[in-house]
Amino acid sequence: MPLRPALLACAIALMCLPLAAEPPKYRSAQEIIDAAPADAWRTLDPANTLYLELGGGRVIIELAPQFAPAHVANIQTLARERFWDGLSIYRSQDNFVVQFGDSAADEATAKPQGSAKAKLPAEFARKSEGLKFSALPDRDGWAAQVGFVDGFPAGRDPASGQVWLAHCYGTLGAGRGAEPDSSNGSELYVVTGQSPRQLDRNITSVGRVVSGMELLSVIARGPQPMGFYEKPGLRTPIKAIRLASEVPEAERTPLQLLRTDSTAFSDATEARRNRRDGWYVQPAGHIDLCNVPLPVRTTGS
Amino acid sequence: MPLRPALLACAIALMCLPLAAEPPKYRSAQEIIDAAPADAWRTLDPANTLYLELGGGRVIIELAPQFAPAHVANIQTLARERFWDGLSIYRSQDNFVVQFGDSAADEATAKPQGSAKAKLPAEFARKSEGLKFSALPDRDGWAAQVGFVDGFPAGRDPASGQVWLAHCYGTLGAGRGAEPDSSNGSELYVVTGQSPRQLDRNITSVGRVVSGMELLSVIARGPQPMGFYEKPGLRTPIKAIRLASEVPEAERTPLQLLRTDSTAFSDATEARRNRRDGWYVQPAGHIDLCNVPLPVRTTGS
Repeated sequence: MPLRPALLACAIALMCLPLAAEPPKYRSAQEIIDAAPADAWRTLDPANTLYLELGGGRVIIELAPQFAPAHVANIQTLARERFWDGLSIYRSQDNFVVQFGDSAADEATAKPQGSAKAKLPAEFARKSEGLKFSALPDRDGWAAQVGFVDGFPAGRDPASGQVWLAHCYGTLGAGRGAEPDSSNGSELYVVTGQSPRQLDRNITSVGRVVSGMELLSVIARGPQPMGFYEKPGLRTPIKAIRLASEVPEAERTPLQLLRTDSTAFSDATEARRNRRDGWYVQPAGHIDLCNVPLPVRTTGS
Repeated sequence: MPLRPALLACAIALMCLPLAAEPPKYRSAQEIIDAAPADAWRTLDPANTLYLELGGGRVIIELAPQFAPAHVANIQTLARERFWDGLSIYRSQDNFVVQFGDSAADEATAKPQGSAKAKLPAEFARKSEGLKFSALPDRDGWAAQVGFVDGFPAGRDPASGQVWLAHCYGTLGAGRGAEPDSSNGSELYVVTGQSPRQLDRNITSVGRVVSGMELLSVIARGPQPMGFYEKPGLRTPIKAIRLASEVPEAERTPLQLLRTDSTAFSDATEARRNRRDGWYVQPAGHIDLCNVPLPVRTTGS
């Protein structure tokens, strides 16, 4: 126990300053999350939730229309019209991304995209007005500020007033060619490696995987350097991509996510920033944006 | 073309300042690496190289005796005495680590460790004297300074004079229990996820994977939260772990690594920090320690 000189001072001077409170008992991030009130959790919106159905199971993606409205609308159209069904994950580059869609997209045999738009504006960043940005206090090399918007890791530049989705593990982006406006959401990638933040503000991010990353991260890597499979037989077939809202309710996965503007989330992040659980001898005093876990639970659990 | 007012000044004043040189043509990191002179490459020291032999192929690890001399010596002993042969990778946690060694280490059936030491000092950090630290200019949230020592990503604290191995993708560390000095190198882990830099200075890092990460990163994840397989049949068998120096020369993998104190390495890193290759519209002006690739080639390639 630490000595308490304040007690002595109080006895001698008869002028009792409030005693320093015992520091609150350290609670781990998990304990904080487990104790979070019901209103710290939000339910995924089925209209902005994609189910990527693979042989191994379901990958669940939350779309971000507040950042990429045109791309998300196109993706919703493509999902409704079952564009991806029977296509594949045709690229897996170690420590970077998996990419999926139509491996013949640049060829005459490309699959028709129905009523989806062929051309969209680039949606790399947007004005911060109308968004609630919960800033992290931690320094970041890639952005003036980092934090979370509606559950998505994001960067912000107060000088320009711009905000953008950050590339972290699980980020879903829209592949593009040389031209900034050459993506339309039909070719998608998910980050499976060390956060490639150099892509921030250079490509349109459209959402993030909230469940099932372990199905994507283990996909055998294609040949170096870029991981496109030379043999089509190595591609991972996509059984279907569906909007949750188009799936019968009984077949939906009932997920809730911890609100990133909740006290429980900021307390859990602080518990990770300064770990005092007996194992750590040197708490970092810091956390990087892409090291902050975004808790998910099955509804009612 | 930009206007050249210096030309006018020269004609009027008859005092010709040197013309501003054309900015040098942008070379990509790969172009710089391809053009690196022979002396920018170093050959792995077979005495400090481990071959982790799996059914799918060989993972090649460079040990770091300059950071963890006691652990590396013990690992060399364990490899010489074939401790790991027939053991397994018994943990795979998504976005974190794979861990390997004796899954029965805490039980009565633990495999004997021969002449390896049971107890070692913790080797979390060391004094910077005697090490060449090639600092990155980039800001970092986890350490006052970051850079490279002999090819290893590292952090440094000028105030304390300490330097330590950083936890990046591919870092090899020695698992420990609650006590800081409870590792002896027999239980090892490799980082397969977003750099868990909070482990820096909290555990003994002993080296890094220089080739074959794609064999470890695809290993099926074990059950959440920690990824230890409940069913032993899901573990990945280790055929052997050998020091390269104990393997006949004809069976060694002849690798070279780009020196992290070479001009080619710093130029390639700068080319990644500020990409001007036509695709990027917003060069980051920054790179994180764990986003810097560490080039490897087969000798003579």
